Amino acid sequence: MSEENAIPVIEDQPEAAAIEIPHEAGRDLDMTTHTHQIAPTQFVDAKGIHFAYRRFGKAAGVPLVFNMHFTGTMDHWDPLVTDGFAKDREVILFDNAGISSSSGEVPTSVERMAANALAFIRALGLSQVDVLGFSLGGLVAQELTLAAPDLVRRLVLVGTGPRSGESMASLTPEPQKIFGATYDPPDHLWLSVFFTPSEASQAAGRAWLSRFRRRTEGRDPEVNESVAPAQLEALARWGAPRANPFDYLKAIHQPTIVINGHNDVIVYTIYSYILQQNIPNAQLILYPDANHGSQYQYPERFVRHVSMFLSEEGA
Amino acid sequence: MSEENAIPVIEDQPEAAAIEIPHEAGRDLDMTTHTHQIAPTQFVDAKGIHFAYRRFGKAAGVPLVFNMHFTGTMDHWDPLVTDGFAKDREVILFDNAGISSSSGEVPTSVERMAANALAFIRALGLSQVDVLGFSLGGLVAQELTLAAPDLVRRLVLVGTGPRSGESMASLTPEPQKIFGATYDPPDHLWLSVFFTPSEASQAAGRAWLSRFRRRTEGRDPEVNESVAPAQLEALARWGAPRANPFDYLKAIHQPTIVINGHNDVIVYTIYSYILQQNIPNAQLILYPDANHGSQYQYPERFVRHVSMFLSEEGA
Repeated sequence: MSEENAIPVIEDQPEAAAIEIPHEAGRDLDMTTHTHQIAPTQFVDAKGIHFAYRRFGKAAGVPLVFNMHFTGTMDHWDPLVTDGFAKDREVILFDNAGISSSSGEVPTSVERMAANALAFIRALGLSQVDVLGFSLGGLVAQELTLAAPDLVRRLVLVGTGPRSGESMASLTPEPQKIFGATYDPPDHLWLSVFFTPSEASQAAGRAWLSRFRRRTEGRDPEVNESVAPAQLEALARWGAPRANPFDYLKAIHQPTIVINGHNDVIVYTIYSYILQQNIPNAQLILYPDANHGSQYQYPERFVRHVSMFLSEEGA
Repeated sequence: MSEENAIPVIEDQPEAAAIEIPHEAGRDLDMTTHTHQIAPTQFVDAKGIHFAYRRFGKAAGVPLVFNMHFTGTMDHWDPLVTDGFAKDREVILFDNAGISSSSGEVPTSVERMAANALAFIRALGLSQVDVLGFSLGGLVAQELTLAAPDLVRRLVLVGTGPRSGESMASLTPEPQKIFGATYDPPDHLWLSVFFTPSEASQAAGRAWLSRFRRRTEGRDPEVNESVAPAQLEALARWGAPRANPFDYLKAIHQPTIVINGHNDVIVYTIYSYILQQNIPNAQLILYPDANHGSQYQYPERFVRHVSMFLSEEGA
């Protein structure tokens, strides 16, 4: 599609020029001075969508593209995770179509979300990326990999699961309760979604929330009210029962790492095991006393494990 | 028991004196010049058993004690694994009672194997150890930890499983077939036990076999014919069905890492998942395209993952 091969349109923000500097391995580019907190929001157009993104880190090797969870924006990533990766590689955060600073509509299928993510990546002129997806973002990452196997070098699936299966078609009882409650302040919702009730996990959660709130300038607006219904419809379609639901995973030939908490109540942990058992070249890591957001509970450990995986020799 | 607190008896081999040098952190001891291939076999007496062991590596921190699988001796460990750990910590290999160079009888219960292992560790005068167990050695490591929780700091369970469960009481169909066949040379047995049929895994297996055969001086004799029947009886007792078979795992409070291959046909991979789900503070790592001997297929990765775990801050 011609839109997917369009030349990147870099807009109005003066910092955006940083990505036009040619990539030279070992050279300390302006981009490397950016971090999660100060990386400017930039824009690129593809498929008629005005995609908001941030790009920072060491301009060497294959960039790592982050795919966000249900109702999340670029500001929902953990700076310890993104900056942790940014020490050794480029990190690309973006809002998919219809989310926060990006224009367009949220599609009601994961496949179309993946098509939009793909259009965004191609619009940046990238020929190879590593893809990380968390929760709903992990579904998008799977479909993106199946749709563009030559583009995706390695795959990182966090707190996510396969097509079909009990908790994929509709929310499990736990999130129905968690998302149905009210929180003051509202972002305390995430303490229940991402962390276990243990004292240690809740303390890690509060530390994560304070990191998560730290960016104040150029913050992404929260998503509007049309996002959740569309994403839920896409989840329901993805999770619909079908015959041999896990067979499609055999077609993911990329080296893959699957990571989750020991007791994910949002996308049950057993689905991480099922992903690993069905993707031909997949490693699994499960962290103790952790729920859906294990990577925010153990950010340094997560970055080390995934960095080891991304830097391994061979296919 | 008085035997368990006996003063170590260091025997006849001149290199054995190395362990009598006081441990001083940062000092390069003679022991650090030993490696898997040249570490002398030493002896210590406890509970009336003459225990054969080898001890080498950097004399700093908490030593890592290795517990061996069904019918294995000290020479069945992978030098890349043992020497990999020895760069940063002391490694202790030993033959449990009745095995190879050690005197005594192989007990017909895992609990008594663990009591012997405990007597051996205490006879060395150690007050704290990290414990690694592979397969049957992983069962021993669990019982040892339950019997002496203050002695064990951290636990590494590799290719192993919990009490009870389908493949623990009797061998699974796969090993019945694998152990029933004949091999020329005999150690080609291990290519089927530890590696998958894939080309990559079998190549890794042949590389491991060549490492495994490299020690020629002072090698452990293969076990005698009374070992396998006693170990099988212990496995049958351990694996016998019982009510709430995994509850005992809640009593393991040590930080634990569970590691296995993606498709362990000897102790099914799902049991690694069950261990992680039931031990309160456990991390799980499963490697791709790997069978029972995943740590020999990916020795560097295994050492890095376990070293990270052993060196983590906090409980």
